[in-house]
Amino acid sequence: MQFIVDLVKEGKVVQARDELLNYNVVDIAEFFDELEKMDLMLLFRILPKNLAAEVFSYMNIEGQQYIVESMSDEEVGAMLSKLYLDDTVDFIEELPANVVKKVLKNTSPNRRQLINHLLSYPEFSAGSIMTTEFVDLKKELTVKQAIERIRKIGFDRETINTMYVIDDNRILEGIIEIRQLLLTKEDVILDKIMDTNYVFVKTTDDREEVAALFKKYGYLSMPVVDKEHRLVGIITVDDILDVIEEENEEDFAKMNALSPSNEEYLETGVVELAKKRIYWLLFLMVSATFTGIIINKYENVLSSVVVLASFIPMLMDTGGNAGSQSSTLIIRGLALGELQLNDIGKIIWKEFRISLLVGFILAALNFVRLYFFQHTPLNISVTVCGSILMIVVLAKIIGGTLPVLAKKMKLDPAIMAGPLITTIVDIFALMVYFKIASVLVLK
Amino acid sequence: MQFIVDLVKEGKVVQARDELLNYNVVDIAEFFDELEKMDLMLLFRILPKNLAAEVFSYMNIEGQQYIVESMSDEEVGAMLSKLYLDDTVDFIEELPANVVKKVLKNTSPNRRQLINHLLSYPEFSAGSIMTTEFVDLKKELTVKQAIERIRKIGFDRETINTMYVIDDNRILEGIIEIRQLLLTKEDVILDKIMDTNYVFVKTTDDREEVAALFKKYGYLSMPVVDKEHRLVGIITVDDILDVIEEENEEDFAKMNALSPSNEEYLETGVVELAKKRIYWLLFLMVSATFTGIIINKYENVLSSVVVLASFIPMLMDTGGNAGSQSSTLIIRGLALGELQLNDIGKIIWKEFRISLLVGFILAALNFVRLYFFQHTPLNISVTVCGSILMIVVLAKIIGGTLPVLAKKMKLDPAIMAGPLITTIVDIFALMVYFKIASVLVLK
Repeated sequence: MQFIVDLVKEGKVVQARDELLNYNVVDIAEFFDELEKMDLMLLFRILPKNLAAEVFSYMNIEGQQYIVESMSDEEVGAMLSKLYLDDTVDFIEELPANVVKKVLKNTSPNRRQLINHLLSYPEFSAGSIMTTEFVDLKKELTVKQAIERIRKIGFDRETINTMYVIDDNRILEGIIEIRQLLLTKEDVILDKIMDTNYVFVKTTDDREEVAALFKKYGYLSMPVVDKEHRLVGIITVDDILDVIEEENEEDFAKMNALSPSNEEYLETGVVELAKKRIYWLLFLMVSATFTGIIINKYENVLSSVVVLASFIPMLMDTGGNAGSQSSTLIIRGLALGELQLNDIGKIIWKEFRISLLVGFILAALNFVRLYFFQHTPLNISVTVCGSILMIVVLAKIIGGTLPVLAKKMKLDPAIMAGPLITTIVDIFALMVYFKIASVLVLK
Repeated sequence: MQFIVDLVKEGKVVQARDELLNYNVVDIAEFFDELEKMDLMLLFRILPKNLAAEVFSYMNIEGQQYIVESMSDEEVGAMLSKLYLDDTVDFIEELPANVVKKVLKNTSPNRRQLINHLLSYPEFSAGSIMTTEFVDLKKELTVKQAIERIRKIGFDRETINTMYVIDDNRILEGIIEIRQLLLTKEDVILDKIMDTNYVFVKTTDDREEVAALFKKYGYLSMPVVDKEHRLVGIITVDDILDVIEEENEEDFAKMNALSPSNEEYLETGVVELAKKRIYWLLFLMVSATFTGIIINKYENVLSSVVVLASFIPMLMDTGGNAGSQSSTLIIRGLALGELQLNDIGKIIWKEFRISLLVGFILAALNFVRLYFFQHTPLNISVTVCGSILMIVVLAKIIGGTLPVLAKKMKLDPAIMAGPLITTIVDIFALMVYFKIASVLVLK
């Protein structure tokens, strides 16, 4: 698309605009994000006004900020009036204070009030991701009247696929799909056809729970109500896709000893990336020194039978892996709402049986390898294999329980994943191993 | 909702039906899934026909199968004709052969052909998740004619939010949102208002790539075309939510040494769960025996300075964690399309600098602790801390590179996560540690 920049520079503005209009807005935004600052303004200014606002909403924050800073107050005002409210709020949330001031100064008082209201909802709440631009209807309207109203006000609403029926106090009474309006006779009253078994969320609900409802019911949008059941906004599925992605990436990060980040890898600096990693590494390294204490305590066992050391890595890895498997399933079960806090008994009982089965197979195969193939002394073979069985059982119970306990303590269960579980299991693994060894090997 | 079952058993069918109609279809389906088999059929039969099909589509496969087996051929035929085609295909894919036969026997030849066609697309392809029930329009139509056509055929189409404009050879020419139809004057021709910069996918595209497009563009549906650019189906965002969830759970599983599963934890048997875990555990346990070989090789170093053993767990854990962090970021970057195969050089260079920074901090802090606080001999302190630095560098480069190499070899990068990276890094960690020790500690 670089040739479009050249066209503008050669003064062929009309041609450049036509070329640009061949692309999808999202692709134009992506292209703009990669432009030099100077070229960016040149091209942004040739876009038709409506399209400009839309392209702007898809751009990254650096570009958005540069554009707002480069434009006159009038231009900022004109563009902002064409942006969806939720996109405006998203972008204001990331701006530095002086630019926020410029933005709010150039917004109509009415809209400014709405923006400030939306900004006041806590982060990660349903209120923070909703928009107030929906079509509301009264139940006394006929289908014909409803369609007329949509034609009149629908233009700047985020969606007209679903309409919301409210009473005079803005209490939500029902929802109606556009499909239903089009497929019903014109003189039918909305009261007769609106769906009153609708699913709704509250402004204070956690956005992750809202995402779970979208997944469960397959909706394209959902109404958001306040404590008095007044309709205050709607959430659309495109914003939910973003929520799901952010929540998942956060879990992937936390489950792998990383501080979560929304930045792309290649665009994040080395120091920044190092910061996201050092805290967990440090914490886990210090925790791992406990294992050293245990080994030191059993130095007499180890120095008399040095070969015992050669099994330590295998035992630790197996324990860590067994524990990670369990904790992953429990963490995801909790995140998806398939598991509840009071399932802990069932989880322990299930993990116990699984671990006996899995542990026994691993122990038996190891015994065959050690004793029969490698002719390892019987007492050492038994020590290693007995340890495997016990370590797997311990690991799976620890891995199955800690995420639930974390949730009970209002912590994110995702931190109780592989890395931390491994460190905890390591300590138990070494204790079990040396305890058995000091009975069977030292005599 | 259990009281509704009692109502039916007392013969109060009308009252029971009214009660049931107070709930959302998804909730009714969930309630039905938990019923005893006998009660299920009692309640299913009292549902109005249209609702029955919808509830059926949200039920789990056991319930669906039981219902199909319990119903007469006519009943099956009637219900299937009301199901959306993509839901029918989803459910047929999970049925045993004899039930599939019963289902297909009771479907109209026309529909049967469509079902077979949809079933023939490869798993995980765009074709396998699309539906053929969309509204197509011709560009010569006026807005008024288009709305009339939607009123006529829209009833059993999956969505009427977006319409698709095709020519006489079914070649896709543009798309039109319902919003646009309602907000445009009645006599305008579709050709003037249709969007020709639409984004489309091919039947053979991977569904994960399709999901990425939905996230990028924020669409509610997307057209699917064949090699000749003929419109063959559409994909709707509700099915994409399922795809995203399945793909994510698959990655969470693979990244934690589990074979992926779609079943809920509490509903899966112990043996089944054990099977999902044993293969990876076994493979990793066998791989970990290499570490034993290294330790045995350096037995002379270890037996003369037994205290060296006490640092092994900490070094292994730190290496494993450092490697997992890197591999997680790279795996997710690849999955989200933020990283490409040819970024490998940039990745290595970035990981190298990060690892120097992180490794140096960890090594320095450890040195202070070991040498100054615990008065560990200088040569041992230097061995441990030098090893940390080198292990972190190795771990991050291994963790950053292997997922890319896996992708290059057409393997899923997700397998190159924590567990496998840890095992591989362990081997290098021990080699580095003992190599340094045999120079600095043994003399």
